[in-house]
Amino acid sequence: MKQWNLLSENRGKRIARGLAITGRIADPGKIVALLEAVIESGDRVCLEGNNQKQANFLAGALCALDPARVHDLHMLLSVLALPEHLDIFDKGIASRLDFSFSGPQAVRLARLVATGKINIGAIHTYLELFGRYFIDLTPRVALVAAQAADRQGNLYTGPNTEDTPAIVEATAFKNGIVIAQVNEIVDVLPRVDIPADWVDFVVPAPTPHYIEPLFTRDPALISEVQVLMAMMAIKGIYAEYGVERINHGIGFDTAAIELILPTYAESLGLKGKIGRHWALNPHPALIPAIEAGFVESVHSFGSELGMERYIEARPDVFFVGRDGSMRSNRAMSQVAGHYACDMFIGSTLQIDMQGNSSTATLGRISGFGGAPNMGSDARGRRHPSAAWLKAGEQARQQTSQEKKKMPRGQKLVVQIVETFREHMQPAFVEELDAWKVAEQAKLAIPPVMIYGDDVTHILTEEGIANLLLCRTEEEREQAIRGVAGYTPVGMARDKKMVENLRDRGIILRAEDMGIDKRMATRDLLAAKNMKDLVRASGGLYAPPKRFRNW
Amino acid sequence: MKQWNLLSENRGKRIARGLAITGRIADPGKIVALLEAVIESGDRVCLEGNNQKQANFLAGALCALDPARVHDLHMLLSVLALPEHLDIFDKGIASRLDFSFSGPQAVRLARLVATGKINIGAIHTYLELFGRYFIDLTPRVALVAAQAADRQGNLYTGPNTEDTPAIVEATAFKNGIVIAQVNEIVDVLPRVDIPADWVDFVVPAPTPHYIEPLFTRDPALISEVQVLMAMMAIKGIYAEYGVERINHGIGFDTAAIELILPTYAESLGLKGKIGRHWALNPHPALIPAIEAGFVESVHSFGSELGMERYIEARPDVFFVGRDGSMRSNRAMSQVAGHYACDMFIGSTLQIDMQGNSSTATLGRISGFGGAPNMGSDARGRRHPSAAWLKAGEQARQQTSQEKKKMPRGQKLVVQIVETFREHMQPAFVEELDAWKVAEQAKLAIPPVMIYGDDVTHILTEEGIANLLLCRTEEEREQAIRGVAGYTPVGMARDKKMVENLRDRGIILRAEDMGIDKRMATRDLLAAKNMKDLVRASGGLYAPPKRFRNW
Repeated sequence: MKQWNLLSENRGKRIARGLAITGRIADPGKIVALLEAVIESGDRVCLEGNNQKQANFLAGALCALDPARVHDLHMLLSVLALPEHLDIFDKGIASRLDFSFSGPQAVRLARLVATGKINIGAIHTYLELFGRYFIDLTPRVALVAAQAADRQGNLYTGPNTEDTPAIVEATAFKNGIVIAQVNEIVDVLPRVDIPADWVDFVVPAPTPHYIEPLFTRDPALISEVQVLMAMMAIKGIYAEYGVERINHGIGFDTAAIELILPTYAESLGLKGKIGRHWALNPHPALIPAIEAGFVESVHSFGSELGMERYIEARPDVFFVGRDGSMRSNRAMSQVAGHYACDMFIGSTLQIDMQGNSSTATLGRISGFGGAPNMGSDARGRRHPSAAWLKAGEQARQQTSQEKKKMPRGQKLVVQIVETFREHMQPAFVEELDAWKVAEQAKLAIPPVMIYGDDVTHILTEEGIANLLLCRTEEEREQAIRGVAGYTPVGMARDKKMVENLRDRGIILRAEDMGIDKRMATRDLLAAKNMKDLVRASGGLYAPPKRFRNW
Repeated sequence: MKQWNLLSENRGKRIARGLAITGRIADPGKIVALLEAVIESGDRVCLEGNNQKQANFLAGALCALDPARVHDLHMLLSVLALPEHLDIFDKGIASRLDFSFSGPQAVRLARLVATGKINIGAIHTYLELFGRYFIDLTPRVALVAAQAADRQGNLYTGPNTEDTPAIVEATAFKNGIVIAQVNEIVDVLPRVDIPADWVDFVVPAPTPHYIEPLFTRDPALISEVQVLMAMMAIKGIYAEYGVERINHGIGFDTAAIELILPTYAESLGLKGKIGRHWALNPHPALIPAIEAGFVESVHSFGSELGMERYIEARPDVFFVGRDGSMRSNRAMSQVAGHYACDMFIGSTLQIDMQGNSSTATLGRISGFGGAPNMGSDARGRRHPSAAWLKAGEQARQQTSQEKKKMPRGQKLVVQIVETFREHMQPAFVEELDAWKVAEQAKLAIPPVMIYGDDVTHILTEEGIANLLLCRTEEEREQAIRGVAGYTPVGMARDKKMVENLRDRGIILRAEDMGIDKRMATRDLLAAKNMKDLVRASGGLYAPPKRFRNW
């Protein structure tokens, strides 16, 4: 007779071992012993390392395990953010890794992969990784972070719900073990984000969980070139397609767009016509647009430090709980970004001549976070919008010889980059570093963030290339070269063909859009520095220290 | 000064009006008055009508509202399943509709659209509709169904969690109103699926919520043609690509595949190599494969009536709570189906010569449920698998002239159909009815379930057309005609070209795969009728009455 309850039986033993060491509300001093009691070698362990919120107390405890007793863990992490996330491998406690993003640890990750200390399963986009938690990467143990717990073990995540519900659901309902670190134990929670019976142990951590203000951009650092690019984005794309539902990437290029909505876009009469609904973290740079009435709603993947009081005071715009604080949810916001937004616009490090882009550069394995999910055509989408239909029409404009093709809309996927990035590295290249990274890290295929056939527009300081209108691979290549400026790739353009593409409206220069470049000054920014943002928020926004010089 | 808390202020008034009529645990006799107190004309109202679970008591109450007082509701429904779902429009209480699937009500829906009583926003795939709940279709009021509530208002959904978490989260955290009908109020819930502070009113309904056993297929009705097609699927696709993670559609064609896993697939030595992980409702037809050890895990959109005890006895396979019963979740299972499965295989009603398929036929507006989400290439996917890489390679096989293209995997999307469906209607057509349906229902574009450029294989009793290997539109068309049998479309094939496609392995006949057609008998089915399924389950499966003749 086959036994069908091995997981629950094994779970029972682990819980009993854990309870022999400490209570369900666990003694933080016994956390290492608790982990050693409930984790077994070879386990898939999901450690909550998100874009912002970090279960850093549990990460530290995991590093303190004895690798002779616990080893070969298979780690699942949304984001490799902390040194501890890699220490686990360096110390021989874990050996295999599936993840989404590793920005701050990308160099060290590459090194550990090269020395064989980390065996990478795959790089994912967030929602893809969550999907696998329910199929073939279900965590045996989940180590998560919350703001507070009550004595029953109900969790309150506050505004930083982020990945917690997806992780806990996949683990708790497959007879896994869920351990949450919390900042405090309280009698009555402001609200319940995760029910107590989905959680096995709660540990009050000695210090609040670490949280990173990842989406704050100081307007003082926005250049006039970025203002010009933002003007082209608004006039040449947002207005052109009537884009009402948007996801913005992280970065100064999109922050510039946010900051000229109430000035430049307003002057074009675009209020109520573009940027009404957003899948977006509460970017401080969005405050002036919200105050000007541009923004009707924002659903967020996670929160942003310092925005708490502002969000609570603007409940008509943000998703908030009965307690007034935000409820974010990375899984559902990624779903919304994928299926309910008409446009993704973000930056990248390298673009090749087919339009493929990647942030994986030599010596770094960085991952892509949410970009692949939002920066790809959602082919399962069926509801129309003006923007989606127009993009689809442009992509399928038929020559008279062709058969009647089935019409279909398309998502706008815009890459916004200056032709040269930091240290005068060209953003446009003949071949992506991703090919070599794939070799080094033994990946099956090069790690591409956004594939060329999903990209609809490339926007640089030289203009916009509308790839939807290109009819051949060659046209596409020249359209890209035609906005690649003075990079070697841009210099190698076929000038005649580029002029022809411009005549046909495939390449648009600022002047073709009726944009006066002299207007592209920092004066257009609705907030010119952090203080302006605070002022725009009516004093509700409280920037983290590192962003304040007053 | 702009006011920023209109939603919460308005919510407060509605709740107060509701509480003036009945308590938070509401009197079912006062349900109509309660709804009239909390719903306002023009509201977006999400009524839980799922694939299986129905908030039918609340649907009935909604129909009893006075249209002079409450009208022009904008209804949001996953599935139009009950007559009440359309009565709401017929009576002038609602006027606008956004939905995903309307199988049982498709004819009446078409009629109400034609008479102008329903204005359709759009047809969606489930996950897309959920995504919009967080962006531009956030419900003002959600009417949901659960198994039980405690006196605090915590909800227990039991195995049929389905759409409830997604609906409630979007509503509760945008200051909307959530009303749940429950079968019973209890002192202590077996587990908490929805926390009490996300719910405003709980109504014990006089009868348990309606639930439909939608995924049960009686093996007695499976034909030998279907057995042959199942053999071709397993040998020509599952084994060929090594497909380990699968989503099956609903229907007899895929039920036949499930039922020959432990016989035919086992004889080919495929156990442990195909069909290990599933995003799937607990199909009774899967029981023999589970018992044979083929299936390692199943995550489900919803449950299936009669499977409760079987699921509880197989917790290593299914996702279950601490109480032992299943936790389903349509949103997360659709995410898993989209991103973590290598193959979708399902049936359709019509396929055109570009491979586009649709279930929208004249006089019916049926919607597509989850098929568009799972039957499309997940272009945001980044993790490789053998099946995904091989499909991608086939699609991108390069002729020597072509440039080195960026490699990329691809999802296997298989359409399995007999060339003639009921009433000798051909499944293959020169033009989809969807074009005319679009005109009739004033849709922006024809309602296509799966687009031709997402389909990788078409499988009929005549063989398999591998569209990945087609290099021109013409080859694609002839490959489709080449498996379209004696339909007019099939008869119009270019015989020479079809033979050439067969020589190149683009069209595969049973004999090309080494399949002996004489083996294609019902003897291969691991269960030949409902009683066999019960027996295979060790008596744990309890089919609903309509499926029992004993």
